[in-house]
Amino acid sequence: MAKQIVQPVKGTRDFYPEQMAFRNWLYGKVKEISERFGYQEYDGPEIEYVDLYANKTNQEILSQQIFTLKDRDGKLLALRPELTPTFARMVAQKSQQLPKPIRWFSFGRMWRYEQPQKGRGREFFQWEINILGPESPEADAEILAIAAEYFKTLGLTPQEVVIRVSDREFMQKELRSFGISEEQIAPAFRVIDRKEKIDPSEFRRDLEEVGLSKSQTQSIESLLTEKDYSQSPWLKEVFASLKLYEGALDYIEFDPTIVRGFDYYTRTVFEAWDKTGQLKRSIFGGGRFDNLTAQIGGERVPGIGMAPGDMPTQVVLEQFNKMPDLTPKTAQVLVTVFAKNLYSNSLQTADKLRSQNIDTEIWLDTDSRLDKQLKYADQKGIPFCLIIGPEEVEKGVVTLKDLKSKTQTTLTLDEAVSKLSRSTTKS
Amino acid sequence: MAKQIVQPVKGTRDFYPEQMAFRNWLYGKVKEISERFGYQEYDGPEIEYVDLYANKTNQEILSQQIFTLKDRDGKLLALRPELTPTFARMVAQKSQQLPKPIRWFSFGRMWRYEQPQKGRGREFFQWEINILGPESPEADAEILAIAAEYFKTLGLTPQEVVIRVSDREFMQKELRSFGISEEQIAPAFRVIDRKEKIDPSEFRRDLEEVGLSKSQTQSIESLLTEKDYSQSPWLKEVFASLKLYEGALDYIEFDPTIVRGFDYYTRTVFEAWDKTGQLKRSIFGGGRFDNLTAQIGGERVPGIGMAPGDMPTQVVLEQFNKMPDLTPKTAQVLVTVFAKNLYSNSLQTADKLRSQNIDTEIWLDTDSRLDKQLKYADQKGIPFCLIIGPEEVEKGVVTLKDLKSKTQTTLTLDEAVSKLSRSTTKS
Repeated sequence: MAKQIVQPVKGTRDFYPEQMAFRNWLYGKVKEISERFGYQEYDGPEIEYVDLYANKTNQEILSQQIFTLKDRDGKLLALRPELTPTFARMVAQKSQQLPKPIRWFSFGRMWRYEQPQKGRGREFFQWEINILGPESPEADAEILAIAAEYFKTLGLTPQEVVIRVSDREFMQKELRSFGISEEQIAPAFRVIDRKEKIDPSEFRRDLEEVGLSKSQTQSIESLLTEKDYSQSPWLKEVFASLKLYEGALDYIEFDPTIVRGFDYYTRTVFEAWDKTGQLKRSIFGGGRFDNLTAQIGGERVPGIGMAPGDMPTQVVLEQFNKMPDLTPKTAQVLVTVFAKNLYSNSLQTADKLRSQNIDTEIWLDTDSRLDKQLKYADQKGIPFCLIIGPEEVEKGVVTLKDLKSKTQTTLTLDEAVSKLSRSTTKS
Repeated sequence: MAKQIVQPVKGTRDFYPEQMAFRNWLYGKVKEISERFGYQEYDGPEIEYVDLYANKTNQEILSQQIFTLKDRDGKLLALRPELTPTFARMVAQKSQQLPKPIRWFSFGRMWRYEQPQKGRGREFFQWEINILGPESPEADAEILAIAAEYFKTLGLTPQEVVIRVSDREFMQKELRSFGISEEQIAPAFRVIDRKEKIDPSEFRRDLEEVGLSKSQTQSIESLLTEKDYSQSPWLKEVFASLKLYEGALDYIEFDPTIVRGFDYYTRTVFEAWDKTGQLKRSIFGGGRFDNLTAQIGGERVPGIGMAPGDMPTQVVLEQFNKMPDLTPKTAQVLVTVFAKNLYSNSLQTADKLRSQNIDTEIWLDTDSRLDKQLKYADQKGIPFCLIIGPEEVEKGVVTLKDLKSKTQTTLTLDEAVSKLSRSTTKS
């Protein structure tokens, strides 16, 4: 009986060079955008005390989706489900020394115990970008402009995706004006947050369970159809600032149904959606968190940020046929081994090519047939093969075979170096 | 009473932009070396079933240092203590489709529950580089040459560091020739592995506990002083091949005391050490693992690899004063805000600079004094500030302030773009 290969853990992914090429491509893009706006890269640990998330992170994540483990001194640890609390902790620890505004970004691994499905895994990557310091609508506009830039950079158009923005503080004020009590606001927000996923009768029943009257529910339903952001003085300024970023507003609209599930959001909140609705949930979200550093014990430093994940991004790129055409980077040349007694010639040649900054593989089996070696190079997509047979050794030359054009030329090593350097394309 | 800021978990690290700059620098170096030799980047999950490590990984890691958590279906999971078993699993799963040799590398996070100290944490990064397919001494020479290249690239000299190589199979044969039984070999190896950390009498007592006679122990002690690798036909070929890599042998020597603690190593094993012995343990290690893919249920694919970690590497660089002088990358220019009514001019200018690929920060508070803004740029190391006051707006120009030379010039925006582009230095 064949032994079973040990399986990977459900909800995790193996990054073979093909998948790694996409992850690196995405990382390159978000790094470029972040740096274009002056953000610096940082990272935190991937394990934190569970306390760091309590009463801040999304309740659903905290109660159902967190991966926990026990430290040997009995303290409960969590695999980070998101990076913002770590960011707040790091800032709180050094808030006196850090010049403000703090513009930082990261691209790292997160965990949530969710049901794996298309665009959702238990282990995934997130670009997290935050600005801390300014409590100004201009900061919110910058983060939203970066969200629009993300889509633009990925080749996704305003016909395909949209960023929906609202203002929690404005919504709270409106709910209060309907006579809804402070205690009812948070649970009512959670019902509003689920609105897209449930039908209207369920929505009404859930609000009733929160304790709202029929007329209060009707007022909310009417409010949720509001299209004019100018009733929120804050959003009015955010949008005024956004007009100054060329093309950004094509991607952004006001939508009072957006409240977000994260309890630490205080004011501006937003979610990106695909317009066809195929993904059935937001692509990513973000918002303003003015009290988070204070909540974890530091001084108050207001901020705003967002966290697009790799998996929903990939689904949306695939859906709109915008996936980049990537192949893993290979060596520029394979130095083949003609015969055992010529192995040293091949190896020394490979060593010289590398010293000239040419990415070079050497064949390592000293008695393989040449066609096997050429086939390997071809399968792997290596563009050139170098052949050093007895004739080449005698004449002090090498034969360079171009596997794409299927042509070969005999050259001095210097000529080969210069040809290989010229045709190098860095991926 | 001041609230306590939630603490990070013991043995983890926060990567502020300063620390991230070193991590990215190291990643860039190992990526460059890996690709120079034709290795492709891959990665696995950070959690695996504990089964994957059983009877393969180092026994000390497995019994004492593994971070475990329970999956919700009761299965025991581990935060990866090393990547090689994941690599073997990934290869085993696709071994028919993957062209051989498989040359892959990765740079990722690992966990071990160790006592945190200088150069050792519970969460750390490891460059892992493996070649799978060839069961040839030439493959071993390649990995060893890459190890030497690592030190060379980091600026560490053969006077400062050394790579000590041995052959487990040769050592087993020698031990058998002393009449030591098969069952005694593995525990005897573990005693030999600890030799550097214990004194001679403890070493003898430990071997006695394994069941070895006084004369067997003496034979081992004599064997461990052996300087001639040519008694191992395998190492003889490895060293013959290593001679062909320019400068590699300056870093490499035969040392029969090296056996490594990992049970999956079959033949060549090696460890890198600092020559002063200050680190008190190896900088990194590696070896040949011919049966690992078979051990986890796949077909047998022999291979060799190594895994240098970021923390011991940093300690050694610091010890020999070879740490690179790194500062986190900043924006090229800060566009300041002269007054609230001129904010839109500044923001549109920033937007234009970014569209010309100039990394640009904008000040986000619309009523800060200019000197506060200039001070921020200076603190953060941003080389230029752009000032757009009423005079500049009237004349259609901008003032560009060079914070290093403390000079300023009035230019058209196009001229400023061209000046900022010229002076951009990508880190």
